Amino acid sequence: MLDKTVIEQLEALVGKENVLTGKVDLVAYSYDATADVPRQVPDVVVLPTSAEMVQDIVRLARRHKIAIYPRGAGTNLSGGTVPLKKGIVLSFQKMNKILEIDAANLTAVVQPGVVINALNTAVASHGLIYPPDPGTVATATMGGSAAENSGGLRGLKYGVTKNYIMGMEVVLASGDKVRFGGKTVKNVTAYDFSNLFVGSEGTLGIITELTAKLIPAPKFRRTMTGEFKTLADAGNAVAGIIAAQVIPATLEIMDRMTIQTVEDFAHIGLPVDAEALLLIEVDGMSEDVVNAEAEAVMRVVTENNGNLRTANTDQERDQLWTARRNALPALASLNNTVILEDATVPRSRITDMLIACQDIGKKYALTLGTFGHAGDGNLHPTILCDKNNQDEMSRMHKAVDEIFEAALHFGGTLSGEHGIGMAKMKYLGDELGQSGLDLMRSIKESLDPEYVLNPGKMVPVREN
Amino acid sequence: MLDKTVIEQLEALVGKENVLTGKVDLVAYSYDATADVPRQVPDVVVLPTSAEMVQDIVRLARRHKIAIYPRGAGTNLSGGTVPLKKGIVLSFQKMNKILEIDAANLTAVVQPGVVINALNTAVASHGLIYPPDPGTVATATMGGSAAENSGGLRGLKYGVTKNYIMGMEVVLASGDKVRFGGKTVKNVTAYDFSNLFVGSEGTLGIITELTAKLIPAPKFRRTMTGEFKTLADAGNAVAGIIAAQVIPATLEIMDRMTIQTVEDFAHIGLPVDAEALLLIEVDGMSEDVVNAEAEAVMRVVTENNGNLRTANTDQERDQLWTARRNALPALASLNNTVILEDATVPRSRITDMLIACQDIGKKYALTLGTFGHAGDGNLHPTILCDKNNQDEMSRMHKAVDEIFEAALHFGGTLSGEHGIGMAKMKYLGDELGQSGLDLMRSIKESLDPEYVLNPGKMVPVREN
Repeated sequence: MLDKTVIEQLEALVGKENVLTGKVDLVAYSYDATADVPRQVPDVVVLPTSAEMVQDIVRLARRHKIAIYPRGAGTNLSGGTVPLKKGIVLSFQKMNKILEIDAANLTAVVQPGVVINALNTAVASHGLIYPPDPGTVATATMGGSAAENSGGLRGLKYGVTKNYIMGMEVVLASGDKVRFGGKTVKNVTAYDFSNLFVGSEGTLGIITELTAKLIPAPKFRRTMTGEFKTLADAGNAVAGIIAAQVIPATLEIMDRMTIQTVEDFAHIGLPVDAEALLLIEVDGMSEDVVNAEAEAVMRVVTENNGNLRTANTDQERDQLWTARRNALPALASLNNTVILEDATVPRSRITDMLIACQDIGKKYALTLGTFGHAGDGNLHPTILCDKNNQDEMSRMHKAVDEIFEAALHFGGTLSGEHGIGMAKMKYLGDELGQSGLDLMRSIKESLDPEYVLNPGKMVPVREN
Repeated sequence: MLDKTVIEQLEALVGKENVLTGKVDLVAYSYDATADVPRQVPDVVVLPTSAEMVQDIVRLARRHKIAIYPRGAGTNLSGGTVPLKKGIVLSFQKMNKILEIDAANLTAVVQPGVVINALNTAVASHGLIYPPDPGTVATATMGGSAAENSGGLRGLKYGVTKNYIMGMEVVLASGDKVRFGGKTVKNVTAYDFSNLFVGSEGTLGIITELTAKLIPAPKFRRTMTGEFKTLADAGNAVAGIIAAQVIPATLEIMDRMTIQTVEDFAHIGLPVDAEALLLIEVDGMSEDVVNAEAEAVMRVVTENNGNLRTANTDQERDQLWTARRNALPALASLNNTVILEDATVPRSRITDMLIACQDIGKKYALTLGTFGHAGDGNLHPTILCDKNNQDEMSRMHKAVDEIFEAALHFGGTLSGEHGIGMAKMKYLGDELGQSGLDLMRSIKESLDPEYVLNPGKMVPVREN
């Protein structure tokens, strides 16, 4: 429990109206979207309205050795925002202004609490988009998605969050404020701090402003699905599309278990007898090129024994997208615990990984479905279980271990887009080795020697 | 002077044939391609043939507190490879193997000494390219260009080196060897070490292996030039091309002084009465799109009072490219000292920056020409002077100060692609501020507390 004088000092720094200590308020900040990780009720929630306030809060916290947990909308899937050691949750919901849209330089400057969709709405009138597209764009914030380096449905063609963050203002654990990067498309002045802080999960500094890159909105698109009788056919179609030198904006896969669950949930006429479904969208600036790409995709789907369906109207497109966007909520409706992983493999090993996940599910008698971003090898094996069934939870943990083992065996990585957080810390050494863990700690401790920022996440504590 | 026993220990570690101590050899490693920076003859040059040898050398150097200067081909333009504090030059000319080309995953694994062009030659038969394209591709190495985050002529459309390095093996100052990243297109496991080491100019670790991203080679291209009577027209044409949502592979500019110098040097029929020349190339996978883009470019050039010339044959294209590739050698032939800067501004301020450079040249009565990558705001103001003329050198130094002041004033950066090295360290605080300098030092000292790796570069020593 925090000393009462600390709460009073916080109130003096940011105003009483920006400090929450009521029990109901605190409980609301005790968890995020991640299943099967500990929850913890923080001592206090603070809502700063300026970078200077953030500096003051950090200095106070450091003086009293209180943990700080920066938080956007709490949509992350690795336990990244859970206030594990109590202390202060720093919520950016009041720093939610778009400070500038510079259409000539294709940039926007935003505060961290801006919701991704709000930025896209604001730049739409300029004919521009901010491409990173995690499933939760309607609530996730720019600061949170930058801290997690979020991916999403358009990653294959357009890249992930780090490809769109050009500069930042960050408050460090020292209380110092630094600015780096900016509006120039090339910049080799200093180490690449933007890319160091993007994806650092709030463990190195607190983002208080972002300069984001925008691109012209694509003018044309074609959407289609392919239904396959085997995982191998679907995997080969994915490889075939890339080999045909078409880079779709979206190239998503769902396996049989996911298809069935989504259909039961949303009743949109999905092919429940198919072993795999691909959802493909090509887009671009030229109608001819988009059509040519769509035809190449259709040819590859057919050549790999796929049954083709195309969206001819916006309504039909929305229906296909609804299927994909419903995958997670549909699976989540089936049981009380949804373990959503994001093991990622090189593109050429997608089929191997899909089959491995299916086999692991069978081996441990689990309800396991896989969907995800097939085009970039970023799969979401998802296990449904009952947290009150100890035996099932124990089988689930073994299955998850084997899923990560398989991903690393295929030359892959523990996390393509969800981050390490609490959920994957124990596997980190398997991928990085001891020298890699030491390197993580060296960087962490150089900027935050007392582990004040988001402690218990991403960087395993040194074992003495 | 190094203790003789250290040389003997080095010979024992890597073999006598891989240790150079002859005076002529040492002098050859005392400088790089940068003008107006100090030279220094190293104590010894070592040519390792494996990462393990690099580890042994680093441990020995650290024990004896000897500086290590990693070196590719020495083509950098900021004094990055000059062995300022003597010690060991670590040359990677014998670690020059392409270890793997994986066409299915669009990746290549290479040793640091592989020349960029050699990689491109090797992947050409797969229909692939490695896009980063610094002016010196024929000699510059993958390791050196990764350490410098080199840009080049295709940066506007295809990005710079950091966009193509997916993973690395690095030997740290501790002697530890770490591997991170790899063949997955998404990876959020650990901090983004690849982007931290790319562009760190050899000050944080020594790159011993690289996983590079490849892309399908564009199939069609159109090349053209536009001659303009004013810098403003040329600048407006650049902005107009981007506004027309065409992203050329190349969009280069030369001012009158550069045009005249290249023409005197190469006699290729350049328009010596033009105030500015744009060299533009569009490329892509579809002939129709490339043609449509070329037509859009031609329309913009004409609308901005530009005089158009198109390359209709490969020979004509080569001639246009020769002009651009000759800019630096042509300028260099005029006097004994060529000061080549790379101040970079947001795209919308290119015209302002071109005019500012011209004014600064006049103010200090200097021979100053500007050419460079107009499309990404990365300009190369170039000053020709005589190092024996103290008055001229002093005026040049004042002019360079003002060029950087102007770039920062326009919201730009000190360096778009050449790096900080020795040449720009004194300006670093102007862009980063004290807290930014402290951040640089924190990262540097966490990985190399004794400043063994490339000391005297990029990170200004703390003033006590």
